[in-house]
Amino acid sequence: MEKFKVTFYPDNKTVEVERDRTILSAALSAGVYINSACGGDGVCGRCKVILKKGKVITQHSASISLQDKEKNIYLACLTEIQSDAEIEVPAESKLDLEKLSEEEIDKRLGGFYAKAEEVELVEPDFEKKVFTPFPLAQKLYLQLPRPNLDDRMSDLERIYCQILKNKNIKVSHTNLVNMRLLGEMLRSSDWKVTATLGNKSGIYELLEVEPGDTSERNFGLVFDIGTTTVSGQLVDLNRNKVLGTKATYNKQAGFGSDVITRIIYAQKQEGLEKLHNAVIESMNEIVHELTEEHKIDLNDVTSVLCAGNTTMIHLLLRIDPSNIRKEPYVPTANFIPVIRAYEAGIKINPRGILYCASGVSSYVGGDVTAGVLSLGLDKKEDLSILIDIGTNGEIVLGSREFLIATSASAGPAFEGSGVSCGMRSASGAIQKVKISRKDFNVSYETIGKAKPRGICGSGYIDIIAQMLDAQVMDKDGKIKAVSNKRIRQNDTGKEFVIAFKEEADATTDIVITEADIDNIKRAKAAIYSATLILVRHLSIDLEEVKNIFIAGGFGTSLDIESSVRIGLLPDIERSKFKFVGNSSLAGARQMLLSCDQIKRSEETARKMTYFELSVEPGYMDEYVAALFFPHTDLARFPSIRTKSIKI
Amino acid sequence: MEKFKVTFYPDNKTVEVERDRTILSAALSAGVYINSACGGDGVCGRCKVILKKGKVITQHSASISLQDKEKNIYLACLTEIQSDAEIEVPAESKLDLEKLSEEEIDKRLGGFYAKAEEVELVEPDFEKKVFTPFPLAQKLYLQLPRPNLDDRMSDLERIYCQILKNKNIKVSHTNLVNMRLLGEMLRSSDWKVTATLGNKSGIYELLEVEPGDTSERNFGLVFDIGTTTVSGQLVDLNRNKVLGTKATYNKQAGFGSDVITRIIYAQKQEGLEKLHNAVIESMNEIVHELTEEHKIDLNDVTSVLCAGNTTMIHLLLRIDPSNIRKEPYVPTANFIPVIRAYEAGIKINPRGILYCASGVSSYVGGDVTAGVLSLGLDKKEDLSILIDIGTNGEIVLGSREFLIATSASAGPAFEGSGVSCGMRSASGAIQKVKISRKDFNVSYETIGKAKPRGICGSGYIDIIAQMLDAQVMDKDGKIKAVSNKRIRQNDTGKEFVIAFKEEADATTDIVITEADIDNIKRAKAAIYSATLILVRHLSIDLEEVKNIFIAGGFGTSLDIESSVRIGLLPDIERSKFKFVGNSSLAGARQMLLSCDQIKRSEETARKMTYFELSVEPGYMDEYVAALFFPHTDLARFPSIRTKSIKI
Repeated sequence: MEKFKVTFYPDNKTVEVERDRTILSAALSAGVYINSACGGDGVCGRCKVILKKGKVITQHSASISLQDKEKNIYLACLTEIQSDAEIEVPAESKLDLEKLSEEEIDKRLGGFYAKAEEVELVEPDFEKKVFTPFPLAQKLYLQLPRPNLDDRMSDLERIYCQILKNKNIKVSHTNLVNMRLLGEMLRSSDWKVTATLGNKSGIYELLEVEPGDTSERNFGLVFDIGTTTVSGQLVDLNRNKVLGTKATYNKQAGFGSDVITRIIYAQKQEGLEKLHNAVIESMNEIVHELTEEHKIDLNDVTSVLCAGNTTMIHLLLRIDPSNIRKEPYVPTANFIPVIRAYEAGIKINPRGILYCASGVSSYVGGDVTAGVLSLGLDKKEDLSILIDIGTNGEIVLGSREFLIATSASAGPAFEGSGVSCGMRSASGAIQKVKISRKDFNVSYETIGKAKPRGICGSGYIDIIAQMLDAQVMDKDGKIKAVSNKRIRQNDTGKEFVIAFKEEADATTDIVITEADIDNIKRAKAAIYSATLILVRHLSIDLEEVKNIFIAGGFGTSLDIESSVRIGLLPDIERSKFKFVGNSSLAGARQMLLSCDQIKRSEETARKMTYFELSVEPGYMDEYVAALFFPHTDLARFPSIRTKSIKI
Repeated sequence: MEKFKVTFYPDNKTVEVERDRTILSAALSAGVYINSACGGDGVCGRCKVILKKGKVITQHSASISLQDKEKNIYLACLTEIQSDAEIEVPAESKLDLEKLSEEEIDKRLGGFYAKAEEVELVEPDFEKKVFTPFPLAQKLYLQLPRPNLDDRMSDLERIYCQILKNKNIKVSHTNLVNMRLLGEMLRSSDWKVTATLGNKSGIYELLEVEPGDTSERNFGLVFDIGTTTVSGQLVDLNRNKVLGTKATYNKQAGFGSDVITRIIYAQKQEGLEKLHNAVIESMNEIVHELTEEHKIDLNDVTSVLCAGNTTMIHLLLRIDPSNIRKEPYVPTANFIPVIRAYEAGIKINPRGILYCASGVSSYVGGDVTAGVLSLGLDKKEDLSILIDIGTNGEIVLGSREFLIATSASAGPAFEGSGVSCGMRSASGAIQKVKISRKDFNVSYETIGKAKPRGICGSGYIDIIAQMLDAQVMDKDGKIKAVSNKRIRQNDTGKEFVIAFKEEADATTDIVITEADIDNIKRAKAAIYSATLILVRHLSIDLEEVKNIFIAGGFGTSLDIESSVRIGLLPDIERSKFKFVGNSSLAGARQMLLSCDQIKRSEETARKMTYFELSVEPGYMDEYVAALFFPHTDLARFPSIRTKSIKI
């Protein structure tokens, strides 16, 4: 078959592809990650590339303007290669899949948990209720009595017996490989061996036997598998200590930015395999780096605990997720049995085990259960709310008496997707903004103090709050028609310039459009109204709620005042808000360290009721009422009203 | 490398081998099975072959006489090929690995159990205590409620729930493959599926889910893996019915005739693999034939239950058996966890499971436990003895109060090995004999009514009993020096001709030598004295024992009177002896059909005490006293004394 050589710049990566391959697919093969929020369906218009050389066939797209055409700009997903070619991928079309900096990781995982070098075995509700450490996989050093004519117990039962004697643990299973190695190993190691025990829902299995004493080296990994970011921690299971933390973008982002797009992508040929391989590659990268950095032998990593939303867990295990998006939205499994990590493709000790935190439903996954666990919502006397802001926002309300959860499709705007200059909170993202009330001048702060490349979620929240305060914009999200170099008309409405291209690392000015503002308005309305509906459904007064935990990688760079100002968070006593960073990762760690916590998490998942917003009669009204900054009913935002009056 | 073409006759099988390969090894490669009781160590002298053409290098062996040398006879194990060659394998050197006839199978498996078409679920102690059928693997047809917006339970939990509802069984495990197939399967089969459940020590695992109702087709296999014979039965698990029975020689016989030789062979390079492959091949042949004959899809065979001695089970699982023969004789495992059958190499449904009956020690294996179970020794109020006669004789004494077991190394004589004209009880084996007291003329009966080729174990017992009665031989086993065409002198002593070569299918006369008689004497003395020592160890009078069960493939063609006559069995009321045929296979079947019986068998194995004969002070004296026909102390054999006096 005819093959064409395609080179991508600025990466200078070349790949050979056959005729009619799309540029997007060729880029993936070359290891160049192009933005593709819609999963390659030609809808989102985020995969613009510049053809420097070569012939292509393209399809019509509303995203490509006449000017674009003049500049040889094409949508990578709709354009097929017809000759050798050279293609430029502009910065704004590139997906940053390189590793995050330590600072960014801190931001994403921050809060009081992830930074701690020593993880105290306490409930994160500050009550310091210690739980029993009893890891998912533990190592026991055994000095076995040598057999003699009066004690001829078989090798395997000798090990079982000693474990029972030392630890009062009854082991009843092992695998054939162990049995095949046992005879020689026990005798050559003078009956001194280390047994690795795995806990499979309360059943103990002898996973491995090693000669000598290796019990000092027992490590585990916890993962929070987010739609956008995969975060991992290496834990010393003997010392209940976090050795290191890494995060990387979920490589699935190349196949679509939200779970729905990915579920659709999974239905394409080899789509499921590609999505599975992408997340496994992201995880194995973290495994590799953490173990290299801390000089840990992969064979000493015996267990992995993953928290993720239901779709992510299905993709991790290469289980078809299609029914998650088809009514009545039933996943294959919410409770995943313990399996071997290598069965999923995670490269640790080949006999090491993997447990995935139990989920509640298709849209409330194990990441939420883990969050609830780490925050102790299931044990608190007081009413609490957990708001986990991501592409899907999940909200849990409850106490030790009950737990109810819902999920609101906020859309990817808060993660920088589907908005004109949005980007993920990576280097160069504008995250904090001040707008002068006098001349609408803008000062901003970017992640990594780099030249601005776009705006991340928390940046948008800040911008909108500032535009409200500076009265650049009205409560409906319409930009005022005043003469200012930053305010101008585009094809569909007005836009406000945050950074001119001269000061930015971008080919065009970084702006916020009325369409973007509308997008954010719908996202914040979804989260706010879902929270309110949940509270109202249970006939609870918001004042009765004692804590509002805000979780998500997004959470740490979120400005609380701005969030209340735009009506994302309710206007209540600020001391009730607690940033908890990545509460899912913290919960996963608790489970890895203590099988009691796994049991508790399963009970929690069973206990949690899923509340379906779409069938709730009042939800639409509440949502529509929230399509205002901060809200149609200003009485609900007394502090904003006061502020507005003051102005 | 230089290759030589070697052809074996009369099979006319040709193989290419490199220089210096032994004839024995070349024959194995060609699929020609040559006798090799010692496992190819040049000791047993049973692998004689005739070189018709070609060059070889051989080593000196006492088994090769000058006449042999003149006839170009070599030991296959000591002779290395140096050119293309043609080799004749005489009938007496051939190992019969072809299938046994139905008649022979009946003989081997006979007794009241194996012949039954319908297996009654009763204890085989005639007490008809019904046990609950609850097979190791069962299939359940499930009509699942379709999910809807009010019932969004995940696919997997939906199945678990329905099983709990229908059968009150709590399932908690499944495998990844199932989860991957589930979503599509449930929906395309309109929520009507069949679940296969496996019981792993009381934990239920969802082994497989199939679309539609396949619950009607659920089959299992039971095996008795003997050192010499592998017997298998196909069981309909829904109807508790035996569909068919097959037996074949254990192909391991090509590597040595007893467990010790095989354990030694396992230490050779690739020895363990070869032994493992040989038994698996024997088993898969039976699986193939039974399923072909009864038109059963291999996917509908969901479970296998194996009973075998400890060495056989180690080899089946490819576990190094070397420590079984090294003091203090400790096996790798007596209790084998449930594994997948395909892990061992058994070709049934790839997700089908294998359970091996639990053993007691290195020399009292799961076959004995299964026998005890099927005979109900563990539940009887009365004292019983089980004597399982094989290359290793196992003896169990006890009741519901206690069980004690021992094993006596009888040697392979009773199985036709290590005796000059011995053969396994296959077609042409002399099995019943009458010797005229007048002229010592011999009339005999052969298996399959074929021309005689040799003498099997029960034939030897009959011959010796008849020689005693006809006074051809004295009580010490010496052949009388009288003039008769059947009595003659050989190199080492006298011999008695049972069949002249003219009437036989053999190159020489079929004889019994004084050395053979001595061999049998030692074998019977080992079994008898072990039985007596066990009885005496517990200070029991033999009269207190109410049943003596005689088991083993050997058992059905055994003449009780002859056995008492030669002093193999004690001289007690004949009605106490019960032939039970293959009691191991019957026990295995019970376990396959009822998990309660597996539990019971494990308790039995734990309860059974192993009694080590070699450390018992009186054993040697008792053994020496038994080296007489029937015994030094004739008072122990009153019926024989009376008989002798009458003569």
